[in-house]
Amino acid sequence: MLIIGERINSSRKVICDAMRSRDASVLQLEARMQSDAGAHYIDCNAAAVGVEEEPTTLAWAIKVIQDAVDVPVCIDSPNPEAIAEAIKVHRGRALINSITAEKKKLSALLPIIAEHNPRVIALCMSDAGMPKGVEERLIIAESLVEELVRAGVGEEDIFIDPLVLPISVNGDIGQTILRAVAQLRERFPKAHIVMGLTNISHGMPKRGWLNRAFLVMAMAAGLDSVICDPTDRTMMALLIASKALLGQDEFCMNYINAARRGMLDL
Amino acid sequence: MLIIGERINSSRKVICDAMRSRDASVLQLEARMQSDAGAHYIDCNAAAVGVEEEPTTLAWAIKVIQDAVDVPVCIDSPNPEAIAEAIKVHRGRALINSITAEKKKLSALLPIIAEHNPRVIALCMSDAGMPKGVEERLIIAESLVEELVRAGVGEEDIFIDPLVLPISVNGDIGQTILRAVAQLRERFPKAHIVMGLTNISHGMPKRGWLNRAFLVMAMAAGLDSVICDPTDRTMMALLIASKALLGQDEFCMNYINAARRGMLDL
Repeated sequence: MLIIGERINSSRKVICDAMRSRDASVLQLEARMQSDAGAHYIDCNAAAVGVEEEPTTLAWAIKVIQDAVDVPVCIDSPNPEAIAEAIKVHRGRALINSITAEKKKLSALLPIIAEHNPRVIALCMSDAGMPKGVEERLIIAESLVEELVRAGVGEEDIFIDPLVLPISVNGDIGQTILRAVAQLRERFPKAHIVMGLTNISHGMPKRGWLNRAFLVMAMAAGLDSVICDPTDRTMMALLIASKALLGQDEFCMNYINAARRGMLDL
Repeated sequence: MLIIGERINSSRKVICDAMRSRDASVLQLEARMQSDAGAHYIDCNAAAVGVEEEPTTLAWAIKVIQDAVDVPVCIDSPNPEAIAEAIKVHRGRALINSITAEKKKLSALLPIIAEHNPRVIALCMSDAGMPKGVEERLIIAESLVEELVRAGVGEEDIFIDPLVLPISVNGDIGQTILRAVAQLRERFPKAHIVMGLTNISHGMPKRGWLNRAFLVMAMAAGLDSVICDPTDRTMMALLIASKALLGQDEFCMNYINAARRGMLDL
């Protein structure tokens, strides 16, 4: 299970303020906390600082994060220009979050991807807007993977995101996403399946329980990577247990070691 | 989701001692705790007091449990004689835990079931011993449901238990059971699918996380009832979240109410 730590996101006021004032210490602390908690990538989103400032802010943020931790950054922006600036300063192989099937975005991002060879999150969204059901997600994924492979990206470097929407808006979304994950897993055996986990609980009270239960279910359906908060110890305990239950932890040694190291004491 | 509280089991020393000394207060406290926590049935197992004493002890225990709480009892015994004694004193409609495809047990229990009309847990075990994989479980379930329906039990009163074994013994059991649950759900749309949840974690440290994650996965696969410890508040929070995610909680009202009542504060 590949974990992308979500905490350095400018939608959080503390992060947006730190980005605006170029306070590296806040970002570096968040990066270290997540890396120590098991994150394989640190997501970094600076969109809320404003379109003009985003490219330079994102590039600055990536540098300070990489000064603090060894894990690569997941460059998170709706803005291809910001991604283009940011990827230039990234050391090692970045993950781009995200490309979609929206024609304008696709044509802006494909040359950047061809030049820098990052791994890519392919989000199931098109010019038709939010996908409605499972079938629409499969069709968008199909066309996105085709475009990316044609641009030279290996299927094993594509992270397909079925686009999780809030259950508070659509009561069927949980089942839709679980079915989509299972079908994507079957259709694209070499690709990764990822999701922005916490989207599921927007607008709900006590969001953590919905996030945690949904992660466990999605793992059983075939999810192999996730954008989430790895400092949630309860969620991580469930993730470690889920790997053992799904045959992803030989002789449960990882689970047993986690127990020994106190990671399951909550 | 139908919850069968597992705590009144003579494999626990405190329970076995209380049963031997006829200390009603221990059993009644355990019954109330579980009923208050949301149990729909109170499982009662007196097997460890010994074959001779079991029938009268089980009957006594059921009486004291029903003096304390309004929910029915799940009469849990490997011994048809004990079940025959116990069911006579049970008020209302009991649940029998369990009938198997073992010929001797089946022929002893079917007349008792015909006489008292209880609901029945049908455990996927036969004279061939523990089932190996998914297919064997399906075949046993098929023959058990057929026998029970022929004896007059409605399919909707049968709780099929695929027989959970410890992951410490068999690393594939998690995936086997999840597939069995999904296939049983499809094959027997009117029957319930149940499991003895905590069997999965026997022999492992920090068992709770395995139990909780497995419950969430099994619910997503189609489990609609479970034998477990409802006083585990973390597990219950995940269960409530899982119902919301699986479309079993219209407008998430049950989840939102649980949040308001502090059930999700942990």
